[in-house]
Amino acid sequence: MSVAAQMIETNPTSTGYSPEDLAECIEACFACAQACTACADACLGEDMVVELRRCITTDLDCADVCAATGRVLSRQTSFDSAMTIAALTACREACRICASECKGHAEHMQHCQVCAQACQRCEQACARLLEP
Amino acid sequence: MSVAAQMIETNPTSTGYSPEDLAECIEACFACAQACTACADACLGEDMVVELRRCITTDLDCADVCAATGRVLSRQTSFDSAMTIAALTACREACRICASECKGHAEHMQHCQVCAQACQRCEQACARLLEP
Amino acid sequence: MSVAAQMIETNPTSTGYSPEDLAECIEACFACAQACTACADACLGEDMVVELRRCITTDLDCADVCAATGRVLSRQTSFDSAMTIAALTACREACRICASECKGHAEHMQHCQVCAQACQRCEQACARLLEP
Amino acid sequence: MSVAAQMIETNPTSTGYSPEDLAECIEACFACAQACTACADACLGEDMVVELRRCITTDLDCADVCAATGRVLSRQTSFDSAMTIAALTACREACRICASECKGHAEHMQHCQVCAQACQRCEQACARLLEP
Repeated sequence: MSVAAQMIETNPTSTGYSPEDLAECIEACFACAQACTACADACLGEDMVVELRRCITTDLDCADVCAATGRVLSRQTSFDSAMTIAALTACREACRICASECKGHAEHMQHCQVCAQACQRCEQACARLLEP
Repeated sequence: MSVAAQMIETNPTSTGYSPEDLAECIEACFACAQACTACADACLGEDMVVELRRCITTDLDCADVCAATGRVLSRQTSFDSAMTIAALTACREACRICASECKGHAEHMQHCQVCAQACQRCEQACARLLEP
Repeated sequence: MSVAAQMIETNPTSTGYSPEDLAECIEACFACAQACTACADACLGEDMVVELRRCITTDLDCADVCAATGRVLSRQTSFDSAMTIAALTACREACRICASECKGHAEHMQHCQVCAQACQRCEQACARLLEP
Repeated sequence: MSVAAQMIETNPTSTGYSPEDLAECIEACFACAQACTACADACLGEDMVVELRRCITTDLDCADVCAATGRVLSRQTSFDSAMTIAALTACREACRICASECKGHAEHMQHCQVCAQACQRCEQACARLLEP
């Protein structure tokens, strides 16, 4: 069992979410924040950095939104549905935008390929928690 | 002129936003992130911490969303409207929820009063940038 | 191969660190940031929250330092040894303090037990990169 | 009185620091995190981005360390001297490195000039709190 799943299980409070879906979304948010931070850096080091400006900005933005969302989802005490939905909605959109941008470079740059996958995983995990 | 306003003015790229409104929103996001972090801590130190659980969680969540939004707004290169709107929408909602929660304790606790004001300032600044 | 390891391998620049040790430290930082955020929340929801104030503050501080360090380590372009050592040194100390605090409650609270392990893993991963 | 100063004054707990020095350091950390985030972005948009790679990485690293330190300093409940010193020491060093890097470009780029000043203010504020 992952650390995030163990932390959910041992929390004295619970949310309305399935523990499996919640753990997956928390892990996806943290993994995507890392991948986007690293992808921005890898793009910065490429010879064609000038053409990767949009990708760098999108990566940095997505990293920040995913990091915030991963933290919000890690809190179960006095769980607030409206706050969680606000964060998840922003995160799903940030991941959608970043996945789309990274996919455009994925053929030539493997870090964009890996990052696009991390974004898509996170987008799907957010979408799942947002299902009514 | 504030540091945020100077950074906007000296950036080689510009967004479609009024520089004054953008600077105000960036400053409001960072100030709100600080106030919410400090309010969560002050609530934790109060004798009646048990009754302040919701306020602490809301403060921590709002701090994270404001910090992420303040960073997204600080980026002007390859400015992406959809990304910015996603962050602003989440931030306006987080600040609305946190201001409402803190106002409920503002009569008895001054830190909640100060924090509610920081949240309201940020909510309004986000709303202004979201105006069509 | 983990996402962090793939991002290191596909980055056009490399640091002086062993890719395995670097990936382990990045993953340990992000996992510890998540565990500490969740442990602070779980402590807040416990009946004995008054006696867990120190643990909550330590968790929140450690989460912030680990998150920052995990990001610094994710950047390889124009790698700066002094910057990295500064972050790693703070992170090793934050994890040492938080592990010690959480271990004091680990017998009665499983989330503190899981969090202490995440802190110790991160402390050791930082120490390894700091070895001359 | 600034928001940070008001939050210190209304916190039920106090640290051993002078409230004025503490407020100044908290504000300097948040302002530096903002300036560094914006400077990284402004550098990314410059024609000579290839020669600004080191400045971008240093800015992003310094932003993360300052943001974490500003949060740690905003917590007064169960104040831990060792944790605070660890964060302040890393932050002083990050700001020293980033100020030095930005000063090298300050003649030609005003955003680096403004950012260098924000880093120096933060470095000095950290140094003051670290004085025995």
